[in-house]
Amino acid sequence: MRLNNLGIVRTDIARPDPDDVALLSQFGVATIHEAMGRVGLMRPYIRPAYPGAKMCGPAVTVLLQPGDNWMLHVAAEQVQAGDVLVAGCTTESEDGFFGELLATSLTARGCTGLVIDGGVRDVADLERMDFPVFSRAINAKGTVKATLGSVNVPVVVANALVNPGDVVVADVDGVVVVPRELVRAVAEASRKREDNEESKRAQFREGVLGLDLYGMRAPLAAAGLEYVED
Amino acid sequence: MRLNNLGIVRTDIARPDPDDVALLSQFGVATIHEAMGRVGLMRPYIRPAYPGAKMCGPAVTVLLQPGDNWMLHVAAEQVQAGDVLVAGCTTESEDGFFGELLATSLTARGCTGLVIDGGVRDVADLERMDFPVFSRAINAKGTVKATLGSVNVPVVVANALVNPGDVVVADVDGVVVVPRELVRAVAEASRKREDNEESKRAQFREGVLGLDLYGMRAPLAAAGLEYVED
Amino acid sequence: MRLNNLGIVRTDIARPDPDDVALLSQFGVATIHEAMGRVGLMRPYIRPAYPGAKMCGPAVTVLLQPGDNWMLHVAAEQVQAGDVLVAGCTTESEDGFFGELLATSLTARGCTGLVIDGGVRDVADLERMDFPVFSRAINAKGTVKATLGSVNVPVVVANALVNPGDVVVADVDGVVVVPRELVRAVAEASRKREDNEESKRAQFREGVLGLDLYGMRAPLAAAGLEYVED
Amino acid sequence: MRLNNLGIVRTDIARPDPDDVALLSQFGVATIHEAMGRVGLMRPYIRPAYPGAKMCGPAVTVLLQPGDNWMLHVAAEQVQAGDVLVAGCTTESEDGFFGELLATSLTARGCTGLVIDGGVRDVADLERMDFPVFSRAINAKGTVKATLGSVNVPVVVANALVNPGDVVVADVDGVVVVPRELVRAVAEASRKREDNEESKRAQFREGVLGLDLYGMRAPLAAAGLEYVED
Amino acid sequence: MRLNNLGIVRTDIARPDPDDVALLSQFGVATIHEAMGRVGLMRPYIRPAYPGAKMCGPAVTVLLQPGDNWMLHVAAEQVQAGDVLVAGCTTESEDGFFGELLATSLTARGCTGLVIDGGVRDVADLERMDFPVFSRAINAKGTVKATLGSVNVPVVVANALVNPGDVVVADVDGVVVVPRELVRAVAEASRKREDNEESKRAQFREGVLGLDLYGMRAPLAAAGLEYVED
Amino acid sequence: MRLNNLGIVRTDIARPDPDDVALLSQFGVATIHEAMGRVGLMRPYIRPAYPGAKMCGPAVTVLLQPGDNWMLHVAAEQVQAGDVLVAGCTTESEDGFFGELLATSLTARGCTGLVIDGGVRDVADLERMDFPVFSRAINAKGTVKATLGSVNVPVVVANALVNPGDVVVADVDGVVVVPRELVRAVAEASRKREDNEESKRAQFREGVLGLDLYGMRAPLAAAGLEYVED
Repeated sequence: MRLNNLGIVRTDIARPDPDDVALLSQFGVATIHEAMGRVGLMRPYIRPAYPGAKMCGPAVTVLLQPGDNWMLHVAAEQVQAGDVLVAGCTTESEDGFFGELLATSLTARGCTGLVIDGGVRDVADLERMDFPVFSRAINAKGTVKATLGSVNVPVVVANALVNPGDVVVADVDGVVVVPRELVRAVAEASRKREDNEESKRAQFREGVLGLDLYGMRAPLAAAGLEYVED
Repeated sequence: MRLNNLGIVRTDIARPDPDDVALLSQFGVATIHEAMGRVGLMRPYIRPAYPGAKMCGPAVTVLLQPGDNWMLHVAAEQVQAGDVLVAGCTTESEDGFFGELLATSLTARGCTGLVIDGGVRDVADLERMDFPVFSRAINAKGTVKATLGSVNVPVVVANALVNPGDVVVADVDGVVVVPRELVRAVAEASRKREDNEESKRAQFREGVLGLDLYGMRAPLAAAGLEYVED
Repeated sequence: MRLNNLGIVRTDIARPDPDDVALLSQFGVATIHEAMGRVGLMRPYIRPAYPGAKMCGPAVTVLLQPGDNWMLHVAAEQVQAGDVLVAGCTTESEDGFFGELLATSLTARGCTGLVIDGGVRDVADLERMDFPVFSRAINAKGTVKATLGSVNVPVVVANALVNPGDVVVADVDGVVVVPRELVRAVAEASRKREDNEESKRAQFREGVLGLDLYGMRAPLAAAGLEYVED
Repeated sequence: MRLNNLGIVRTDIARPDPDDVALLSQFGVATIHEAMGRVGLMRPYIRPAYPGAKMCGPAVTVLLQPGDNWMLHVAAEQVQAGDVLVAGCTTESEDGFFGELLATSLTARGCTGLVIDGGVRDVADLERMDFPVFSRAINAKGTVKATLGSVNVPVVVANALVNPGDVVVADVDGVVVVPRELVRAVAEASRKREDNEESKRAQFREGVLGLDLYGMRAPLAAAGLEYVED
Repeated sequence: MRLNNLGIVRTDIARPDPDDVALLSQFGVATIHEAMGRVGLMRPYIRPAYPGAKMCGPAVTVLLQPGDNWMLHVAAEQVQAGDVLVAGCTTESEDGFFGELLATSLTARGCTGLVIDGGVRDVADLERMDFPVFSRAINAKGTVKATLGSVNVPVVVANALVNPGDVVVADVDGVVVVPRELVRAVAEASRKREDNEESKRAQFREGVLGLDLYGMRAPLAAAGLEYVED
Repeated sequence: MRLNNLGIVRTDIARPDPDDVALLSQFGVATIHEAMGRVGLMRPYIRPAYPGAKMCGPAVTVLLQPGDNWMLHVAAEQVQAGDVLVAGCTTESEDGFFGELLATSLTARGCTGLVIDGGVRDVADLERMDFPVFSRAINAKGTVKATLGSVNVPVVVANALVNPGDVVVADVDGVVVVPRELVRAVAEASRKREDNEESKRAQFREGVLGLDLYGMRAPLAAAGLEYVED
């Protein structure tokens, strides 16, 4: 009996409908996260490697070993056009697992970007290539190729579970994971939320307060809020 | 279509065979983690709240909201004798979600301990009661009861996925999660590992070096290791 | 007897003379902090949410509960043109308390910016709107509206005490708090300091050393400094 | 006009009634913090320097400069029997401001303990002397005596405001500050809370659930909680 | 016998051949670090103070005391055109040791930039002047001039040993230290590495996989990697 | 030309006179650090793995690769009775490089303890064996044996330079490095310091203030300290 899923590459993962991914890609991370009911968010220590980085696509997942990027090369072969690579690690490791050569390889395969719970390097090149990367660190320290991890198994990345084929959306506000079967539903919920926000935005612009727009005065009073003069 | 699993309590989770749990409970976290092939470990920021705390049992899982311990009370009802409570949070939160009164309640239900990706308080009482707790912080700050989370859904805790009924083992070395179906197999692999270590330990005691015991000299030389005098 | 100041909104705070605020706004945080004798600085983990953000204005203060932005809406009503919102939290919390809709509302009221010991989101929008925000985190995680805090009570933010009506100045170097009664005096001291620095700057440009400009050679020798050749 | 309160020692601070302090000292930090309505808590990075450390007493406050313990000596003279020394710092500094000699001096003056937003050393000696210390670090690095701070001015310590004469209570759960005028009221509220908890504790011991004891079932259902079988 | 090297300024340090420094300056930190065999890298918490900062030059080294920048003024006199200033500290200290006036002075002396295991301020000015600075923090907090450190002694900076005259290279990927005697050899090894990467880059662009380019398939299979369909 | 010192084991390091080490071992870390003039201290994140751990001995140094403990086995052969093992790492890594089996092996060789800028495990066993360990983390995560580091080269550990044969002293206050040639001199300076402290201690016990004992009143007044009544 297999006691873990190390040393495995799944080659036939299901992906969501590309039209649904395209729909979802219109929305930002904060909107999508709200539309899902506030789940699926990675911890906020994952940050864009350069200003303006953003991405949306189905995940090819990778489980890395510390200071070892062997499995990123294995994963590259599994990437299809539009995919994002999403890499967790069996432990905390901020070495530079990824740089410009791997980005060149992934670009050639149509890869949309990388989210990694580790470090990256060649950041000036990545910015020039506009290959979006979200990572926990920037670090010139290179990695070895010595120990197996896995590709396309469920992976926990920055405290979020990512299944292969889930859609990962990343922008300046963070990184959110949308389960594969929910992509269209979440896109629709995001649309609704944006429509709803547009009308609120108009009222805020005119000076209406959230206190009134959201009907907060009564519950605040019920909770005991007191207005006092000194 | 449900976009998340918030607001849900599963009442009929499967648990492993108690005999298998008893077998597993003989081993420490480091041994079990090795026996599994080095997966399933929580991040090491989860620490025992007092010296000597340790536990082993099937998980009742909880997903908490920040600064809100409502779901711990909901979870208490789902606990059976021998269970451990394992709580993640939708965000990073170090408030004191748990203290002596809840520990008293859980003890009355036969609960074996708590692992929480949050803070706890009343630590002197917990130590006196010998109710083992592993947490990310000690914090007197109390919590509210206002927002739903979930009980007995899959939860990510300190970057490890925990399914309800998985066995969670915790000691001074950390916290490891053993999938429910693997408990016996992991216990057996742990036994093998310990037996194997016993013979190594005897040799180490006699002064045999790891270099020889593990046959490392040839691969080290092949890797280019040089012994030099100054 | 009231044991805390939670659940209170003060509606009649004193503000400094706007001309004094305008005077002060000519100076950067480092200069002002020096002019005050090196007090009043927030801890440096508060950072601008986007490059170039800066602000100066009287504080409307807010005390938040973790993961709960109810009081920001209450505070919005107390904001007058030119004010900045300054929010502390009863505990450490990096959730996204603030985003584009609240920024729209505050802009409509003439608010000059936000300093928050918590997280914010919609950062791309905030940058586009040029609504300056200084925070401890960027985080898409939304917040609830369930528990009372306070508005316009003295609040500790990133280890600095802020009284309502104090002037808060923020730029890339950090955030400093100037007590309301001292605004003009600090502006004048800042002016003096800048004038004094201008003459030093000119000398430095010509190659004069700090050793000579500040007369350090004698005290260094007295302290025992030795110049050696190898 | 004075722009800061550096370089000042106040010699005549008001202290609370010793009987009230004695009353308060019966309660732990978590209880007191709850009794006050959850304010006044220091950030939880302040930890006891050795197991079992605890203290309760009126604060002599100190504002330190980084890596400089001059003002601790100045403060020692202001300490009266029963007082605790409470030291903040103008910046983050983890050097060893305090050790066994100063503890000997303070003990001779009847000082009850130290809370410091900095580092301490000679921890084995402090434990042997049973001089309770709460600090942000343990660090052998010594400090200089070169720059003025203040004694008995209001000081922010670990994000909590401490006025001279406020009572500071510290134990394994953290450190809480009780304003001088509230000591008796908070002691009484703490007593009420403990009495109230005793009856709850008894029920929890008999197996009553918090769900029933606190009447949570209805509000949980109203919030939409669903119990499901798989 | 001297027990430490505090209070010393070495005035006659050896510097590498400027042509070798010029050669080395063509390469980025990640390339140089690889070319050296992955040693000499500072910990990645040292970050550029503004986007685009980069530098390469022989080090004038400084050992600072916490919150005290006296020795930076002493060091300024030792700087020659092309040098970089590299400052460690006897303890962790994030105060603003360095700002625009010192940058003006150093610029007048031809200094190429600063690496400091501490904080800096006047960052907007530094960016405008294009004086590159790499630091552990941005912090408006000023420093005193009271305690001796050293200049041009071996200093550990962010866990890397720096001898005076070593070449320090810094860019967005981090900071690397090249021993003085190795500058030409490392420049040549960097050139070789870049040439070698160019041919790889071309192949990656055409879609060749790292798996094939680096001949990884056999060792991966030998390590037990399994390709599975679900 | 060798560009780094990886892959090297020096077999003939010089050690200090054991009598000098014995002298030094009478003193604590804080005393020794002061006696040296406040240099040589590791960063305070290195902590004892269990209460009461302490050690003093000449260093066998190790440079580790992240998540790889191969070189600890190589180093074990170089250990002589009384030595301590002192391990740095080429990058930040908190994996469990060291546990009970290696401790058994080292004990058999007379090793006095371990200082490691990484993680350790089997901490309950280490405590039972009373094998003192100082580390940056406790972590059950095991390590591989794949990449060369070095033994008995100069290594930076927690920001302190350690040469093989230097004496490393560790206790609850931290870890300090005494250069091999200075061991006797530092022991003597420590003795002097302790003698000097004894007379101060006696005076402190009698209630003499540091203000008077150290003659601080005049310099404090000169610096401008003001005693005020409210």
